[in-house]
Amino acid sequence: MPNISQRGQIMPPSPIRKLVPFAEAAKKKGVTVYHLNIGQPDIETPQPVLDAVRNSHFKVLEYSHSAGNESYRRKLTTYYDRFGIQVDYNQIIVTTGGSEAIIFGFMACLDPGDEVIIPEPFYANYNGFAVEAEVKVVPVTSGIESGFALPPIADFEKKITPKTKAILICNPNNPTGYLYSPEELNVLRDICKKHNLFLFSDEAYREFAYDGTTLSALQLEGLEDNVVVFDTISKRYSACGGRIGALVTRNKTLLDSVMKFAQARLSPPSFAQIAAEAAVDLPEDYFDGIKAEYKSRRDLLVKRLNGIPGVFCPNPGGAFYAMAKLPIDDADKFCQWLLEDFSVDQQTVMLSPGTGFYATPGLGKQEVRLAYVLNLEAIDKAMTALTKALEVYPGRR
Amino acid sequence: MPNISQRGQIMPPSPIRKLVPFAEAAKKKGVTVYHLNIGQPDIETPQPVLDAVRNSHFKVLEYSHSAGNESYRRKLTTYYDRFGIQVDYNQIIVTTGGSEAIIFGFMACLDPGDEVIIPEPFYANYNGFAVEAEVKVVPVTSGIESGFALPPIADFEKKITPKTKAILICNPNNPTGYLYSPEELNVLRDICKKHNLFLFSDEAYREFAYDGTTLSALQLEGLEDNVVVFDTISKRYSACGGRIGALVTRNKTLLDSVMKFAQARLSPPSFAQIAAEAAVDLPEDYFDGIKAEYKSRRDLLVKRLNGIPGVFCPNPGGAFYAMAKLPIDDADKFCQWLLEDFSVDQQTVMLSPGTGFYATPGLGKQEVRLAYVLNLEAIDKAMTALTKALEVYPGRR
Repeated sequence: MPNISQRGQIMPPSPIRKLVPFAEAAKKKGVTVYHLNIGQPDIETPQPVLDAVRNSHFKVLEYSHSAGNESYRRKLTTYYDRFGIQVDYNQIIVTTGGSEAIIFGFMACLDPGDEVIIPEPFYANYNGFAVEAEVKVVPVTSGIESGFALPPIADFEKKITPKTKAILICNPNNPTGYLYSPEELNVLRDICKKHNLFLFSDEAYREFAYDGTTLSALQLEGLEDNVVVFDTISKRYSACGGRIGALVTRNKTLLDSVMKFAQARLSPPSFAQIAAEAAVDLPEDYFDGIKAEYKSRRDLLVKRLNGIPGVFCPNPGGAFYAMAKLPIDDADKFCQWLLEDFSVDQQTVMLSPGTGFYATPGLGKQEVRLAYVLNLEAIDKAMTALTKALEVYPGRR
Repeated sequence: MPNISQRGQIMPPSPIRKLVPFAEAAKKKGVTVYHLNIGQPDIETPQPVLDAVRNSHFKVLEYSHSAGNESYRRKLTTYYDRFGIQVDYNQIIVTTGGSEAIIFGFMACLDPGDEVIIPEPFYANYNGFAVEAEVKVVPVTSGIESGFALPPIADFEKKITPKTKAILICNPNNPTGYLYSPEELNVLRDICKKHNLFLFSDEAYREFAYDGTTLSALQLEGLEDNVVVFDTISKRYSACGGRIGALVTRNKTLLDSVMKFAQARLSPPSFAQIAAEAAVDLPEDYFDGIKAEYKSRRDLLVKRLNGIPGVFCPNPGGAFYAMAKLPIDDADKFCQWLLEDFSVDQQTVMLSPGTGFYATPGLGKQEVRLAYVLNLEAIDKAMTALTKALEVYPGRR
């Protein structure tokens, strides 16, 4: 029997999905599990977005252009324009989810052994994409005490080596919910200029900014050839299953290279491109309702968390995640215990252990990520269950 | 300005798409271009397949399971069963097109520097996936004179080194249309057993076998842990834009590894999984009509080609491609000339130069690939144009 590859062995499993069997077992016992562990919104996909697909009339489900339908890319420029981001349609390559945009960016910008600096905690799947591209993730730690603000410039510069080729941020941030300020982005711009680095900016949660607005890395002046934005319709329109994202850059050499990767896999999904194109035409007030809903969820979640003795949760400015510090020995143990050994009134809560979001060993052991993708009533019940759980958890500190 | 990666530089452009600007220019001049260059079928996607999506009622376009919807995977086992292939639903991982199945297979089985032997001519995008996974493609040449039969076992063994980890075949073959016999597959089985190699089998064209049936590599006894099948609904149901494929293997260690790659990219497209599941329920005689149509196209194409002085086209047993040897100096020049400098009655034909399908430099210079994805009338007109073109082409030999 032939051996699988080293790469196939070291590829990290999803730190979130490893708890799924315990959640399934809990449900079999009749326990209600409040899923605050995963970024799958409960918000309905807008009807016009689904209707665009359901009312389509084509006869052949053909390959699209490898860069995505031109009509969709042209329409996307109007979407970006609303945020003050001027891009040409041929500076957009439509990808199969934001995931593929990240892979294309890594592949086309970084060689095996190259280093990418990422403020931690960060989206766990960046590790997987780094393994696929054989690049090294170098973390710069941001702390919960400062609300996960951008680490000081000196921390970045300490990590820069001749192998450093890029900095990757997620703004607003998954998992911290942190919204980077214009000042912080200017710091990043200066570092990237000085050290000739790519700035990868994952802007999946652009609209989800509650206490300000998201400044896109594409708006940083003088950094046109360095900035690569990873984008997706998944969270924006509650359309995670569409698998439509985009890589956006003004760097022509990079665009030409990414197109070769795009051609090799032929095209992004055709059905969901129709949905995505319709989504750009949603009324401008569409996000007002969505944002108000998420903001009230955030407010409730953060208030409830900070009301539990020994718990600290900085107020996240964006996305739909919060990281909280809990009075516990080990987040992985605690999250498993919640599913395996705990319930109150036949209810419990599923959280993501903080450890999965840090590259530095040992960090995040007292932290959990909570995705506020459930309605207010469910969040309230989940917080009641968590309060009770922390009272009785044997590993409480 | 930061440099893109070496990988991003050496990534091969699509050898087929490079001629597109010349085709566009021809059309602007009012010339009708018969597209025999690309495997985009003109056959309509079956109505029940499209209707399944159009009549769907879900409210949230959610992520699916990373391995694909369980209902679809379970149904796929009945599809495979019809071919005498027994697989369990958890031996199937649904992918974003056959392309992603190939990438996952390469990533999980092969490390950078490992070698994969592929009979040439082969599907050009294998080169791109090899660059992404940093693996080396080692070609074994099959000749047009033998109709592109499997090269002798000695040719394979000459190429095997300590770095060889896999053999990759496409059956029925793109670009040659060759349908491997059970005897040839048994030869491959023996080589893979003896040298402990993975056998990757791209079976995108399984149903398109005109003079026999396709034996799946999954049916080779004693090779259960070595065989990895790459599959796709694209050609089977004229559903290229769905981007639904599958990786199928009975190797449990490999499945566990591939699942980690699948989890990193979250899920395959949700809309098209609905279409794909409906496709399995098409009446059993669905393919009879499709196959009869393609067979009559093949018969006409091959007859017309062999009727042109100096042209030789072996009869392809499957898929919807034929490779033909033409009395020309250089296939790339000829294919460009057809679009740029030739037309008869305002018509010309677009072909794929053979060179793009060979890894060995210099091979394929007198060969072209023709995809018979147009109706009989169009094929007939295209062959009339090609006949005339070969009479007047200045580089005729």
